Amino acid sequence: MKKRLFTPGPTPVPENVMLRMAEPIIHHRNPEFVEILARVHKNLKYLFQTEQPVVVMSASGTGGMEATVSSLFSPGDKLISVNGGKFGERWTQLANTYTQNCVEIKVEWGTAVQPDQLLDTLKANPDTKGVLLTHSETSTGTATDIKTIANLIRENSDALICVDGITAVGAHEVRFDEWGLDACITGSQKGLMMPPGLALIALSERAIKAIEASTTPNFYFSLKKALKSHAKDDTPFTPAVSLVIGLDESLEMIKNEGIEQVWQRHERLASACRQGCDALGMKLFSNSPSYAVTPVWLPEGVDWSSFNKVLKFENGITVAAGQEEYKGKIFRISHLGFYDELDMLLVIGALEFTLKKIGFDFEPGVGVAAVQKAFLQS
Amino acid sequence: MKKRLFTPGPTPVPENVMLRMAEPIIHHRNPEFVEILARVHKNLKYLFQTEQPVVVMSASGTGGMEATVSSLFSPGDKLISVNGGKFGERWTQLANTYTQNCVEIKVEWGTAVQPDQLLDTLKANPDTKGVLLTHSETSTGTATDIKTIANLIRENSDALICVDGITAVGAHEVRFDEWGLDACITGSQKGLMMPPGLALIALSERAIKAIEASTTPNFYFSLKKALKSHAKDDTPFTPAVSLVIGLDESLEMIKNEGIEQVWQRHERLASACRQGCDALGMKLFSNSPSYAVTPVWLPEGVDWSSFNKVLKFENGITVAAGQEEYKGKIFRISHLGFYDELDMLLVIGALEFTLKKIGFDFEPGVGVAAVQKAFLQS
Repeated sequence: MKKRLFTPGPTPVPENVMLRMAEPIIHHRNPEFVEILARVHKNLKYLFQTEQPVVVMSASGTGGMEATVSSLFSPGDKLISVNGGKFGERWTQLANTYTQNCVEIKVEWGTAVQPDQLLDTLKANPDTKGVLLTHSETSTGTATDIKTIANLIRENSDALICVDGITAVGAHEVRFDEWGLDACITGSQKGLMMPPGLALIALSERAIKAIEASTTPNFYFSLKKALKSHAKDDTPFTPAVSLVIGLDESLEMIKNEGIEQVWQRHERLASACRQGCDALGMKLFSNSPSYAVTPVWLPEGVDWSSFNKVLKFENGITVAAGQEEYKGKIFRISHLGFYDELDMLLVIGALEFTLKKIGFDFEPGVGVAAVQKAFLQS
Repeated sequence: MKKRLFTPGPTPVPENVMLRMAEPIIHHRNPEFVEILARVHKNLKYLFQTEQPVVVMSASGTGGMEATVSSLFSPGDKLISVNGGKFGERWTQLANTYTQNCVEIKVEWGTAVQPDQLLDTLKANPDTKGVLLTHSETSTGTATDIKTIANLIRENSDALICVDGITAVGAHEVRFDEWGLDACITGSQKGLMMPPGLALIALSERAIKAIEASTTPNFYFSLKKALKSHAKDDTPFTPAVSLVIGLDESLEMIKNEGIEQVWQRHERLASACRQGCDALGMKLFSNSPSYAVTPVWLPEGVDWSSFNKVLKFENGITVAAGQEEYKGKIFRISHLGFYDELDMLLVIGALEFTLKKIGFDFEPGVGVAAVQKAFLQS
């Protein structure tokens, strides 16, 4: 049975990327590697739509978030954290760990923070040094309108705008410079179509100044060290060489497709996925859907573990379960990274096989037809 | 021209390991991956000769050192750091970053700390909470007698014994439990024959208690989080999946060879390498040589960059340069990880070609003959 991954990280790795990483290892001080890292640095600027440095760290995306909080701010700095899911919660935990002065905006799972709500909090806390935002909240499949919110923050405050773009970069429109972001993070195993192990962080001029001034103790996650090495197309510590080489290959793929085309493809796949689920009579979870992952309520009376067993072991499809209080209540279909139109047809087709098998009532073919219609009429 | 790597990290990755990592990626919550991680956890205990947990972190070896300092100790804790090279210096930097109370023992490059010297410092600082040691100092190719020193520390103090085993584990004898170590770290790209990107940390019962009590703020490098996940064969953050899968393969190779055989092979290769260099009339740098890497003085009048150009571009051999004040004065031949007897013959043979080309005088064949003699007479 063919196995197919529809999870929001790891996401499928293209064969050419896997084969590139399987080539004999080279040393990271070798001119050959320096040349690769220089090209990666350049192509990362294209990915984030920035002229600013984007540093590469050997760590998961969380490591990138920690580097941001511990390098841009100092103990006592007031941060506003928007928590609308597991990854927003992580921002709060990091703020509590490092600056120990965090104002949290709790947002209901499956909804996005409203610009007004953020503005009110910002006005009530004029001494805010940074705002921690999640562009695409993976746990809830919910997208936040970063463009509008960033604009609002810049108009009303000097707070640094830090965006967890982990499942947004390479899926949603992200224009780091134009939108005036200060830090934006992604991880390799997301839109970049790579195995996990690298965090990428874009940093504005304002962020770089803040990094110079920060008094928080850190070492491996020091963005000061990372920026210093970045200027020489180097890294402060031995990088995950094979992953950087794979990233070179996957960034080339993104460049060849064109970043705007990549964003549009994700929007198209996400929309078709939602229409397929909807046609099958399944309720969507988010009222502000991400283009990276689509969370769907399990139909009433359907048991998650029986459903997942059929989907996984009879159809070879791995999707993500719900998290926290939504465990067993929702599931999440990812279309982040190396996916195309036919993949959406395939996953909705497998959903039909599964729902049929467990006795859920629907008109056979109605899901895949909706997917086709979405593509052919767009 | 065939390219061959003789650097102390990255070290060559066996083909079966590369191909295993090139298989389609799986999700880290997949039972298949949990099974792999459980096996990795079990085989890491064999590697470190311990019944204690060995945690896997997605970071370079430095990340493992940082996790140790920031998780075992609290601000103000007095640490003794032994600094006999670039990596000993890193212990000091980490201590200065986190506990800000570090007594440093400076050791001349190319020599190891003497047990007496450490004991005196320990007695002069009875409030020492931890001792930071380097088993094999990569920058100087120098080994420290950890067994004797650990014994001495345990007899005279309650300080936790933290060992940077990054180029020692899988090369030198390391018996974590028997020697009474508290933390020992290695990295994937060393004796483990893997690409960089993973840090592995063995932790004693005493270390685990210290971790519970530590008040240093950390997050990604929290060993408390890592231990909690380890107990369920899980990781707190998305692990570098493909690297963990490669590690499964390389640990299997070490198990099949036998850990004592692996140690003996490294001792044998290092000895032959030194005898080959010596026969060619080149002076050895260290008076307490590591089995991982052999540093050699460049013969007088030989220019490093001309030498390296011939070695690299005419013979395909990459060795490591000297670091800091020894840049251009020494070079370092690695035999750490996936090397055998014939590799030593080959690297000394390439040295002969190179020395001949740049006009250094020696009797052709005397280097390789010494290598052969070392192997055949042992």
